[in-house]
Amino acid sequence: MIGRRSVSLAIVAAPLVAASTAFAQSDPLPSWTDSAPKRAILDFVARTRTTGSADFVAVPERIAVFDNDGTLWSEQPIYFQFAFAIDRVKALAPQHPEWKEREPFMSVLAGDMAGLAATGETGLLEIVAATHAGMTTEDFTKAVEDWLETARHPRFKRPYTELVYQPMLELMALLRAHQFKTFIVSGGGIEFMRPWTEKVYGIPPEQVVGSSGVVKFELRDGKPVLVKEPKVEFVDDGPGKPVGINRFIGRRPVFAFGNSDGDQQMLEYIAGGAGLRFMGIVHHTDAEREFAYDRQSHVGRLDKALDEGTRRKWTIVDMKSDWKTIYPFDRR
Amino acid sequence: MIGRRSVSLAIVAAPLVAASTAFAQSDPLPSWTDSAPKRAILDFVARTRTTGSADFVAVPERIAVFDNDGTLWSEQPIYFQFAFAIDRVKALAPQHPEWKEREPFMSVLAGDMAGLAATGETGLLEIVAATHAGMTTEDFTKAVEDWLETARHPRFKRPYTELVYQPMLELMALLRAHQFKTFIVSGGGIEFMRPWTEKVYGIPPEQVVGSSGVVKFELRDGKPVLVKEPKVEFVDDGPGKPVGINRFIGRRPVFAFGNSDGDQQMLEYIAGGAGLRFMGIVHHTDAEREFAYDRQSHVGRLDKALDEGTRRKWTIVDMKSDWKTIYPFDRR
Repeated sequence: MIGRRSVSLAIVAAPLVAASTAFAQSDPLPSWTDSAPKRAILDFVARTRTTGSADFVAVPERIAVFDNDGTLWSEQPIYFQFAFAIDRVKALAPQHPEWKEREPFMSVLAGDMAGLAATGETGLLEIVAATHAGMTTEDFTKAVEDWLETARHPRFKRPYTELVYQPMLELMALLRAHQFKTFIVSGGGIEFMRPWTEKVYGIPPEQVVGSSGVVKFELRDGKPVLVKEPKVEFVDDGPGKPVGINRFIGRRPVFAFGNSDGDQQMLEYIAGGAGLRFMGIVHHTDAEREFAYDRQSHVGRLDKALDEGTRRKWTIVDMKSDWKTIYPFDRR
Repeated sequence: MIGRRSVSLAIVAAPLVAASTAFAQSDPLPSWTDSAPKRAILDFVARTRTTGSADFVAVPERIAVFDNDGTLWSEQPIYFQFAFAIDRVKALAPQHPEWKEREPFMSVLAGDMAGLAATGETGLLEIVAATHAGMTTEDFTKAVEDWLETARHPRFKRPYTELVYQPMLELMALLRAHQFKTFIVSGGGIEFMRPWTEKVYGIPPEQVVGSSGVVKFELRDGKPVLVKEPKVEFVDDGPGKPVGINRFIGRRPVFAFGNSDGDQQMLEYIAGGAGLRFMGIVHHTDAEREFAYDRQSHVGRLDKALDEGTRRKWTIVDMKSDWKTIYPFDRR
C-alpha cells in the first residue's frame, strides 16, 4: 500500500503542482478575474491572519470546508460517482445474468437513462449497494483507482480527475499557505473520494467527510479486513452536512464553499458562528466552457441556497465572468 | 468561542509544555526506563524514518492511534466520563424529582454503586442519555469544561486532566517530531473528549475518534445549532475501533497503543497491514503509584488481548518497571 500510494502520488500530482506554481507568482489567484469574489477571498484571508485584529482567527480554528461535486470538480451530465457505479454494473453483469431482466440493472445495461430515472431513489440505492458492497475497503479502493485510470468524461474525453476547477485549486493552496486546514464535506461517498483527493486536491483521506455505508470488521483467513455492507450508514447532504462536520471535525469551520441546495445548511451553520466567516457559492453559468444550470437542474440544483446567499450577501461566484480558467488543461 | 479556547489553552497547557521540555533534552523519552518497550519505540521511529530502508514509511502514512481510557489517562475506579455523568445526574436532580424513585437514578443519587451496577447496561445507557442529550453540542462542551474545572479524582484529589501519563505525552511528542499524526481512538464519547484533548495531549478535535450519539441540525430562533439526541449512533469499541479508524482516518495506521480487550481488534487491524508496524499495550501493574488490574477487572479488562499480545510479541508495557514516572506531577 505504501509503495503504491507514493508512486501514484508522484505521477498524478500535476494539478497540485499547477496550483503551487501559480502561488509562487505574486498573484495567488491568477485564474480568478479581479472581481468581487476574488477581492472577498483576499480580504478574508488578510483580516483573519492579522494578530490583534478583531477578525483574527487562531490557527487551530482555521478550518475551511468544501463541497466536492460541482464545487471542486464538475458534476454533469451525472455525478461522477454514479458514472463509476454504472460502469461497475456493466463490468459485474456477466456474474449476474439475472440483471438482464431486473430493474434498475436492466435499464443501466440497455443504456436507458429514462428507464433508470423511473426506478427512482430506490433504484439508485440498489445500484450503489450492488456495486459498492460485499468487498473489502481495500478492494473497493482498487476498483476506484482502476476506474479512474480508464474512464473518460463523455464530453471532455478526459479522466474525471482532470475536470477539477483550477481556481479552486489556487484557493485551497492560498488558504493552506495561511495555515488553514482544508476539508471536503461532500454528499458523495467517502470511500469513493479518499483514493484520489490527496493526489488531486492535496486533501488527505482523514480530511474527507462524506456519505458512507456500513462497514464491518472481519477476520478472513486470519487476516483482519473491513467489509462494505449494502446498507447506508450516513448521508452527508443537506442538514447532514453540519452533522458530518460536527462528527468528523468537531468544531465549526470559518470558511465554506458549496454550489447547491445540498450545501445550504452547511453554509448556514458556518454563517451562524461568531466572528468573521466566509460563505461562498459556485454558480454554474458557463455552458460553453463547462455547464450552465441552477434552479431546474436534477443534478446539483441551486435554488433556495441561491436566494438565501443573495439575500445574506454571501459570495456568489459567476463561473463565466469570475473565473478566467475553468480546468487546469484550459490554461493559456 | 475562539477567545475562550485560546485563553484556556494558555492556562492548561502544562502537561504539553512538560513533554516538549523533556524532548529538548537528549533523551526524548526520559520517563521511560531503559527497557524493552523504550528500545522498541526508538527502534521503530528510527527504522520508519530512514529513506531507502525497507521499513521506511512515507510521511502521509505516519498515522499513530491511541486508546484514551487507561492508555493516555487513568480509568479507575470508574471511567472518568462516567464520573462526569454521575455528577451531572446529581446536578440535574432538582429538575427531575421523579429520579428519587426511579432506577438507575435512585442508586446514583444514593451513592449506591452496587445498586447502579445491578441496573446493568440498560441503566448505564439511560444515565448517559439523560445526562448527555437534549442540549446543543456547544452547551455540552461547556458542561464538560465546567466539570473538569471543579471535579477532583477521589484518590488523587486532582483534576482528572492531570491524571495523564507522562511517558505517553513524551511518546506522542516524539512521534509528532518525526511527522507522525497522532489520533485518539477511544470507546469514550467523542464530544466528551474534544473539549480538552488539544490542551492536554496536543490532539485537535478533528483527530479524536470515539463513540457518538445522534446529533440533529436545527434552527433555534433562526440560529443554526446541533442538538444531541438520546440515541447511540456509533460504539467505537472492540470491532468498532477498526471501523471507526476507517471511517474517520481512512487509512490503516502504522502505530497503535491500547490497554484492554476493547483495543484487541484495533491492534489486530494495525498488525494486519503490510510493512513494519508497532502494536503496544499498557499493562496496569502499579497499585502503589496508579492501579493494578487486568484479567478480572470490570473497567478496562485486559485478558484476551494480553494473551494475543504476548503470543505475537507486541510491546507490552509493565507500568511498574517500564515507567519511571506515571503522572506529570510525579516527576522528580
